[in-house]
Amino acid sequence: MAFGWIDEQAEARRRAGLLRTLRPRPADSPLLDLASNDYLGLARHPEVVEGAAEAARTWGGGATGSRLVTGTTELHTRLETELAEFCGFEAALVLSSGYAANLAAVTALGPHGSLIVSDAGNHASLIDGCRLARGTTQVVGHADPEAVAKALATHQGEAIAVSDTVFSVDGDAAPLGLLADACREHGAGLVVDEAHGLGVLGEGGRGAVHAAGLAGAADVVATATLSKSLGSQGGVVLGPARVIGHLVNTARTFIFDTGLAPAAAGAALAALRLVRREPERPARVRAVAAELHARLTAEGLAAVRPDAAVVSVRAPSPDAAVRWAADCRTEGLSVGCFRPPSVPDGVSRLRLTARADLSAADIERAVRIVTAVRPC
Amino acid sequence: MAFGWIDEQAEARRRAGLLRTLRPRPADSPLLDLASNDYLGLARHPEVVEGAAEAARTWGGGATGSRLVTGTTELHTRLETELAEFCGFEAALVLSSGYAANLAAVTALGPHGSLIVSDAGNHASLIDGCRLARGTTQVVGHADPEAVAKALATHQGEAIAVSDTVFSVDGDAAPLGLLADACREHGAGLVVDEAHGLGVLGEGGRGAVHAAGLAGAADVVATATLSKSLGSQGGVVLGPARVIGHLVNTARTFIFDTGLAPAAAGAALAALRLVRREPERPARVRAVAAELHARLTAEGLAAVRPDAAVVSVRAPSPDAAVRWAADCRTEGLSVGCFRPPSVPDGVSRLRLTARADLSAADIERAVRIVTAVRPC
Repeated sequence: MAFGWIDEQAEARRRAGLLRTLRPRPADSPLLDLASNDYLGLARHPEVVEGAAEAARTWGGGATGSRLVTGTTELHTRLETELAEFCGFEAALVLSSGYAANLAAVTALGPHGSLIVSDAGNHASLIDGCRLARGTTQVVGHADPEAVAKALATHQGEAIAVSDTVFSVDGDAAPLGLLADACREHGAGLVVDEAHGLGVLGEGGRGAVHAAGLAGAADVVATATLSKSLGSQGGVVLGPARVIGHLVNTARTFIFDTGLAPAAAGAALAALRLVRREPERPARVRAVAAELHARLTAEGLAAVRPDAAVVSVRAPSPDAAVRWAADCRTEGLSVGCFRPPSVPDGVSRLRLTARADLSAADIERAVRIVTAVRPC
Repeated sequence: MAFGWIDEQAEARRRAGLLRTLRPRPADSPLLDLASNDYLGLARHPEVVEGAAEAARTWGGGATGSRLVTGTTELHTRLETELAEFCGFEAALVLSSGYAANLAAVTALGPHGSLIVSDAGNHASLIDGCRLARGTTQVVGHADPEAVAKALATHQGEAIAVSDTVFSVDGDAAPLGLLADACREHGAGLVVDEAHGLGVLGEGGRGAVHAAGLAGAADVVATATLSKSLGSQGGVVLGPARVIGHLVNTARTFIFDTGLAPAAAGAALAALRLVRREPERPARVRAVAAELHARLTAEGLAAVRPDAAVVSVRAPSPDAAVRWAADCRTEGLSVGCFRPPSVPDGVSRLRLTARADLSAADIERAVRIVTAVRPC
């Protein structure tokens, strides 16, 4: 029977402790949240909420079409202008998600005959971008600019290197300067995902690319999501105007998708303006992450030193990670739990995310709970 | 230099009359809109707008994480329950876009070793789903159930057939009953995209699958977008609970994407409730499409008889199509213009979309303008 094979897979997943189910949260959760990607604590900020509501009132519930037909509003243009300006790029293009932005950038910039050199730790959306692109992908070791240079040296013609700027699993930063050097040595472009960098790293949260002095370079393209630090939904590609124009003409997840909903664009724009006005938020999220790491390590836990907002703590097994996260939840703390197949190295982890609006008492409480219910 | 190759492509595109640029619209456009996919005229309905605003106020500007972490709210569950109930399916899963929903369904249901039989006229998002899936894709002729049966007969093991229920370019409907017969004969699943069917076809707008008596079948999965008839943003996969559970566990565009923004979920839910309450809207959009077609044909234009809301009118060339659409715009009418590479057969078209809220005078005016500025 059609789809009968699904039951066997589900049973195998259940036996391996890898079955995932959805757990809907109420509007006012009593849990202390160290699981979301709301790094700057802006998703429920009154100005962000009002940005969404006002945009819906002005522009409607949806964009009504592809951005090439009726789906581009003056609101989208304003958001793109301000995102490009803030991050230091010539131009920007907003899409319906960060996933869509990564598919757009990698497929449009990795055409037939080109080489795409991809970090082994890259996010699923970059990997899927590589798989959809017509170019040939070569996966290289994690955060290894020499391997990137070596791969680029084997290829004649167009090439790009693709990397997260901050990796989602362990929260470690990419060696952007060395990656750019490797690319330039071989005339290749650099395409990097600032999903976890925007709003957290760089001057006032301008991102890791800005911090590395690479923003606005003719050979650098950045993507980012509007759903993490900016508390909304959507994705953006930032780069030279010629690259953005190329995406408008060729990127299928841009051309054949409905434009980002006005409410999401309005929320992201309000959040961006808040970040500009309150640069202490990015500084605070980094301080919170550093403190979480220091305290968890002092308690003897295997926490990875965070380069941004993500603090990753290793668990002995998928089962133990699930139990650990569940026990945290019982104690009133929501943490992420990463297990195969979401972790490329197969190591399960608790994933704690710092937020700029966590108080000293919140941090204290989070560390106390994570430590108290740790696996034996 | 990196990305230098882009300029040559842009120049070639310009010479061929195929360069696309964005044209931002103001909040109160003076143009008569026959270009959007706002089929039921709900995108700016006060209840839909308030659904978005209220959801943002209650839940925040964004979902804050993957739906497997913090991104599932009770609002998402409610929307899924009501969508499944309305369309006649056991379960539903909401994603950030229709594009993401199609990538999710096709990749999750077209695993390694399986056969995916895909209609040549399918939407880009279904095609990209086939390209990302680990199964083998065989493309068959447009709307050809015998070709589907023949392809399925060559394969031992898991298989699906994939089709739009209403094709986006010409607005023609797929032969769903015959497709289902072909699939059942070979134990294959049927995966269909209701992007242009939901809210337009079937009893009260329940879609083409419902009309064909296939809703809720164990071997049928439907996808749809929340951004057309429902005036919002997002996508949904509808199917047996076991299939939805499988997607939760395996679909990368579900697992690794931020959940749909609350405002979009709220707008879609409000729109869905409006459609239930006002079943005359779907009937009206079909009547408007039929009238547009009849009048344009009476004027001697090559319009395709619409099966749903899309009325496609052939143009002699890409250049002529662009000029025709531009001349319509000058006269105050916004129409879509499809040209390569958006049209699989290479034929450029004007694409007029009916809306339930077009008046008799609107239709009269639209036909007058399209006819008056037709290419010689």
